[in-house]
Amino acid sequence: MSVLVVYAHPSPQSFNHAVLEEFTKGLKDGGHSFEVVDLHAIGFDPRTKLEDLAQFAGGQMPKDVLDQQEKVVAADTLVFIYPKFSASFPAILKGWIDRVFSYGFAYQGSEKGMEGLLKHQKALLIDTTGFPEEYYKTTGLEDAFRLYGSSILSSIGIQNVDFVSFYAVPMVDDETRKKYLETAYRLGKEF
Amino acid sequence: MSVLVVYAHPSPQSFNHAVLEEFTKGLKDGGHSFEVVDLHAIGFDPRTKLEDLAQFAGGQMPKDVLDQQEKVVAADTLVFIYPKFSASFPAILKGWIDRVFSYGFAYQGSEKGMEGLLKHQKALLIDTTGFPEEYYKTTGLEDAFRLYGSSILSSIGIQNVDFVSFYAVPMVDDETRKKYLETAYRLGKEF
Repeated sequence: MSVLVVYAHPSPQSFNHAVLEEFTKGLKDGGHSFEVVDLHAIGFDPRTKLEDLAQFAGGQMPKDVLDQQEKVVAADTLVFIYPKFSASFPAILKGWIDRVFSYGFAYQGSEKGMEGLLKHQKALLIDTTGFPEEYYKTTGLEDAFRLYGSSILSSIGIQNVDFVSFYAVPMVDDETRKKYLETAYRLGKEF
Repeated sequence: MSVLVVYAHPSPQSFNHAVLEEFTKGLKDGGHSFEVVDLHAIGFDPRTKLEDLAQFAGGQMPKDVLDQQEKVVAADTLVFIYPKFSASFPAILKGWIDRVFSYGFAYQGSEKGMEGLLKHQKALLIDTTGFPEEYYKTTGLEDAFRLYGSSILSSIGIQNVDFVSFYAVPMVDDETRKKYLETAYRLGKEF
């Protein structure tokens, strides 16, 4: 299994980064090959550029997008590890999705409408949150997010999508955080 | 009525920009005062910075965020005009939401959980889309987006939220585009 891990927290001292570390340690121990793209570390610019619009005229995407598309193609599964900001993908990751999953690369038009072009076996979305589970559940934000994430990935051809949330990171006790990290390790090892 | 219009398309030649022009012409003719923030023009950086995390320690947000918060406070309604990218806010606008609606400014913790701090009378979200209405409706992406947008704004105190979508801009005929722009003008004038 060849895994592309797209990671999107600004701080290497964050709990989200610890999740990344445990998950990739698990991948390693499970015998999976993987590559991590640390979006903040590479200075990925999430803003759609005028040059990005070339995709709709059959033109070439900017180099930073092509580099990412090469990594996407080389993997057979995608993993996203990110903090929920405003109950969804942080902007840096939303922009990676906006720009990298471009027309002609991730999808194309067909008689039936939109046709997904990616062939990945599965995608796993792992996030950490600032608020308790009840907030996301009672407001409908969790349903909206999961429907959103699975529909977007399904639109580009990835039907098998799983979600894992580690809730209320700043509020939970050390024991819970330890369990979160054990889960992250196990998710990698049994991937 | 004092309106802050946050606009998020990279191209001044876009149909989305024409929507902005008609909407603000309508606002003017309707006697409303308004300010436009053109996120691409000001080079707004949507990436959450390490310095942004100061909000959780009672510290001050970076200057670019404070500038935007000042504009938010000065308005009694918020309007967002943007293209749907990946069926949701484009990253540059998602990052404006992530960064500007910060802890202590837009919400705070309370015994009941999260408490919204903004007092705006209403918000209006106007978008242009690349695909037909059926795509967003049959995939559930439209429901997910509207639930997401209204829940996020309601969480920070804005209960009255409306959505307008101008669908399939690259596919519709000139007559339909003309009607879209008339609607945009009317939305501004009757705001």
